This record gives sequence, structure tokens and C-alpha cells, in this order.
Amino acid sequence: MKYCFGIDVGGTSVKAGLFTVSGEIVDKWDLKTNTQNEGAAIIPDITASIKNKMREHQLNPNQIVGVGMGVPAPVIDGSRVLNTANLGWKYKEVKREMEEILGFPCAVENDANVAALGEFWKGGGRGAKSMIMVTLGTGVGGGIILNGKILSGVHGAAGEIGHVKVNRYEEESCGCGAKGCLEQYCSATGIARLARMKLASSNRPSVLREYKKVSAKSVFDGVKSNDTLSIEIAKEFGELMGLGLSSIAAVIDPDVIVIGGGVSRAGRVVIDYIKEPFLKRAFFANKEIRFELAQLENDAGIVGAAKLILG
Amino acid sequence: MKYCFGIDVGGTSVKAGLFTVSGEIVDKWDLKTNTQNEGAAIIPDITASIKNKMREHQLNPNQIVGVGMGVPAPVIDGSRVLNTANLGWKYKEVKREMEEILGFPCAVENDANVAALGEFWKGGGRGAKSMIMVTLGTGVGGGIILNGKILSGVHGAAGEIGHVKVNRYEEESCGCGAKGCLEQYCSATGIARLARMKLASSNRPSVLREYKKVSAKSVFDGVKSNDTLSIEIAKEFGELMGLGLSSIAAVIDPDVIVIGGGVSRAGRVVIDYIKEPFLKRAFFANKEIRFELAQLENDAGIVGAAKLILG
Repeated sequence: MKYCFGIDVGGTSVKAGLFTVSGEIVDKWDLKTNTQNEGAAIIPDITASIKNKMREHQLNPNQIVGVGMGVPAPVIDGSRVLNTANLGWKYKEVKREMEEILGFPCAVENDANVAALGEFWKGGGRGAKSMIMVTLGTGVGGGIILNGKILSGVHGAAGEIGHVKVNRYEEESCGCGAKGCLEQYCSATGIARLARMKLASSNRPSVLREYKKVSAKSVFDGVKSNDTLSIEIAKEFGELMGLGLSSIAAVIDPDVIVIGGGVSRAGRVVIDYIKEPFLKRAFFANKEIRFELAQLENDAGIVGAAKLILG
Repeated sequence: MKYCFGIDVGGTSVKAGLFTVSGEIVDKWDLKTNTQNEGAAIIPDITASIKNKMREHQLNPNQIVGVGMGVPAPVIDGSRVLNTANLGWKYKEVKREMEEILGFPCAVENDANVAALGEFWKGGGRGAKSMIMVTLGTGVGGGIILNGKILSGVHGAAGEIGHVKVNRYEEESCGCGAKGCLEQYCSATGIARLARMKLASSNRPSVLREYKKVSAKSVFDGVKSNDTLSIEIAKEFGELMGLGLSSIAAVIDPDVIVIGGGVSRAGRVVIDYIKEPFLKRAFFANKEIRFELAQLENDAGIVGAAKLILG
């Protein structure tokens, strides 16, 4: 039997998995991310942990296909990063350093893209040819999978779905510095912002007024209890997501759109609010695109990393 | 020496070229598109014309790598179309029919995507890794080239750049039925529409008032003669193009954007109006993207078709 490792490097912890080549998880563990000294210990820590697991499971190197890895930075040519916001790494040849220590192949890509690949392989995108993945978390992330492969982009920055523009008249700035990005309305933070604006615009009653701090979760809870203001906020969210996704679909023409991240935990109702405005805006050839919820939650990163090295 | 054919099928005429494998044009000719009887004669006419040219240039089949072809319809799996608006074809297995008659390989893709490939290979995108091509003609067309290959899409409809949304508040409908599409503002027709709206909004003087029918060309001529209203219209055009392209770049992350079509004949000034709003909106990783004008004009289709079969 042959195996591979899938590694998901985050700013506070590294998730790791040992997989069979058919994608079953044999073992799963975490380690801390040591970002001191420009993250000098990160690769030694990960490779040591891989070697430990090989001993533990009595695996020899010729049973290992390789290791796939997602990192929170743009990745150039599936091998190196120029800089990272959260790991301490400046320029680093991640693939080469990993391979020199381990002696078997390593593949590296951006973590959001790798998670998208995981959902494509074993989650909401299973069976599709091409996929748009949208992750509605603190920000709006995502990834594009084309015929089973990650679209990385020339600068390692493809699939930055949160920075598709949906409102040319926006006056507040997005975290990226531009104005009118999808992320400003449809991330958890963006939905809370829409809610605050809605609540401030009138004195109409709403269950949302009972919260000290309104969140995306409180909005979708409000929707489920039939609260009018919550429904109006969800409609605005859906209108902007539908608009943004209709633009992306016109460029990519996938067969499935997968919605993940914390906001998607509200369930199918999230898709219900997106789908109608999407269909109203979509180019005719894109109207049959399926919408699915993400299924792998926190495992998407390690599963996608495994697929990355399996090819 | 080996050769290939590049064919660009249009609704009124078929453009054809004989190329060396390095992309030099050896011969170039046109034939009429006979759309009668559901376009039954189109493939026989094209293949007969290819065979004639082989006799004329004394080429035998083993000197021919194959024939690439662009057709004005979505193309599925590089081989077949489900329907066409202008050729009369319903479902047609274009690749198979061509190959059965000619006895050498044929590759088929959407004509706008094939023209983009031509510009990538020999025109404005030369030397790039990945490209967004925008064709500003009667409509706004385009194509996406990733690592030298056309992005076709699952339904053969990728790269429909004209239907990226740039104005959620638009009330008039685009030809596609949706509202707020780039095409409604930035095609030749769209620019003329912006001009009519601008002229109707005040009595301010403008050279544009001298035209019976204002066109995109009259607007850019006005810009060159420093006409204030023309400049304002060009700014609005550039603002919406820049906005739309910043969205597409966030998804694709190319190294070059090529602007072609009739509107681009106004020259570099067109790019000047697009680039500033693009930079204002673009995600940081996309700020170094080059803008180029298309260079091949009407030959882009046959050149791209040749590249399509050469791979």
C-alpha cells in the first residue's frame, strides 16, 4: 500500500494528515507553528513530525508518494513564496527545502486553493469538472479548480474571489485598500457590517437589536425565526454574492460552485439567498451550475494537500 | 518542412491560412459561409478548399500537422457544438466530421477564444504566461489563456468577459437578458450609449453634437481634440473597464491584459483611460499586470487556430 502526507500550514498551528493514495485518512494530528526567527523552525518541525509518523506507522520512504502542502501566502510555480503575512517567512523555496530533508517529492500551493482542491476531490465538488469555491469566513477567500487542477495564477494570487468588485459606488475601503470588494459585504465581518447599517437606518423592531454585537450567525438565526430585518440583510448578502458569482462564472464557466467557511454553517439557507440573484444575473450558459455546501470543514486543507501531491 | 491550417469560421465568410509550424503565414484566403440547409455545406466547403491548397502548394498529407478551427459558438470538449446562432448548425461533431474527410487531426474552439490564443502567440500577449484578452467590438468578447492554453469552460462558455457585472443598479437590459454587464458600457455600442446619455444630460457644448449618430470612434476622436464631454465619456468607459478587469484579474491573476476589437483602433489612449481605474481597484498582487493593444487585427483568428492544432 502507498501513502502520502497532506499538510495545512496556518499562522498558529499546522494540521497534518497521513492518507492512503485513495484518500482515506489513516492518521491526523496538529503541531504548533513556531513563527520566531522568520519561521526558521517551521519546515524542520513539519519534516520531523512526518518522519516520526513514518516510524510510528512503520512506513519506509518508498511507500510514500510525497507530501502536499498548503501555505497562507501566494505560491509561485508550485514551489516558493516571496513573503508571508503570518508565518515569518520572507522569500522561501518551500518545495526544495522540504524535498532536501525528506527525500521524496513535495508540492506547495496557497492554502485557500488547496482547501478548494480538497472540497473538489472529496467534498461539495465531488464529481465535477471545474469548480468555484468560496469561503465565507472572517474574509472571503476561495479557489478555482479547472479540470481537477488548481488555478494558481502568475503571481500565485488567482482565485481571490473576495476582491471581485460588486459595488462601484462604495465609499468605505476594503482591507485590501480598494473599494467595493465582495469581502466588504459577504464575509462574516461584512454581513455584520450590513446588519449594523440596516439597524442604524431605522427604528424598526428586530431580534437583532437584542445582541450587543450582531454577527453573521445572529443574522441567519434571525432569518430562521422569520425576523424581517434579518431577512432583508440576508437578501442584500445574497444579491451581492449572486452578482459577484455571476461575474466569476462568466469568466470560468464551471459546473459547480461550493460555498464554505463559517457563514456556510447556517446551512442550505445561505445558498437559497445566493441562488436566485445569481440566476437573474448569470450568462445563459451558466444557469445550470450546481450550488453545494462545503463538506470537509477543517479537513479540507489536509485532504486537498494530499490530492495536490497525488495529482 | 511541416505545415498546418488555421480556419476562422464566421457567419458570412470563412478566413483560412496555411502556416509553417513556426507560425509564418504561407498563404491566406477567404471563402463564403453557406448557411443554407443548417450549414450542411460549411464543412465540405472548408475541407475542399484545404485539399485545393494542398494541391496548389504540392503538399502531401504527411506534411500536415493538422487543422485548427475557431467557430462562433460555445465548443464542448474541443470537439462539438450544441447549437450556433449564425452558421445554421445544430448539434454538430465538428472535429470528427473534419477528421473523417481530411484524414489528419482537427482541433476546434470558440472563435473569440481562438483569436485570444492568436494574440497570445504572435500578438499583444507574446512572451506572457497567462492572458486576459478583451475584444471591444459591437459586443465585448474575450478569452482567457492560461499557461498557453485556452480556458474553454465546462459549457464551452468561459471568457465571456462582456457579461461580467459592473453596475448592480443598471435598469436597462443587456442583450443577454441580465443587467449591468460590462458590454452595456464598453462595447462600441455601449460607448455610443454612454455618449447619448451624457449628451442628453445637459446642453453643454461638444463636438459630439455635430454627429447625426455618435459612435465610439467619434468619442475617441473627441478625446483627441480635447473635447470635455468626450473626455468625460471616455473616463466613464475607462472606470467601468478598469472595474471589470480588476474583478477578472483577481480571479485569473494573469501577467498581461490585451485590448482588441474596433474600439482599440483609437490606440494607446484607450489603455490610458482603463489603466488608472484598474490600478485603483486591483488586488495588490495584480498591480504589475501589463496592458497591451492587440496587434493581429483580422488575422488573430487564423493565427490562433494554427496554434490550437500545434499545441
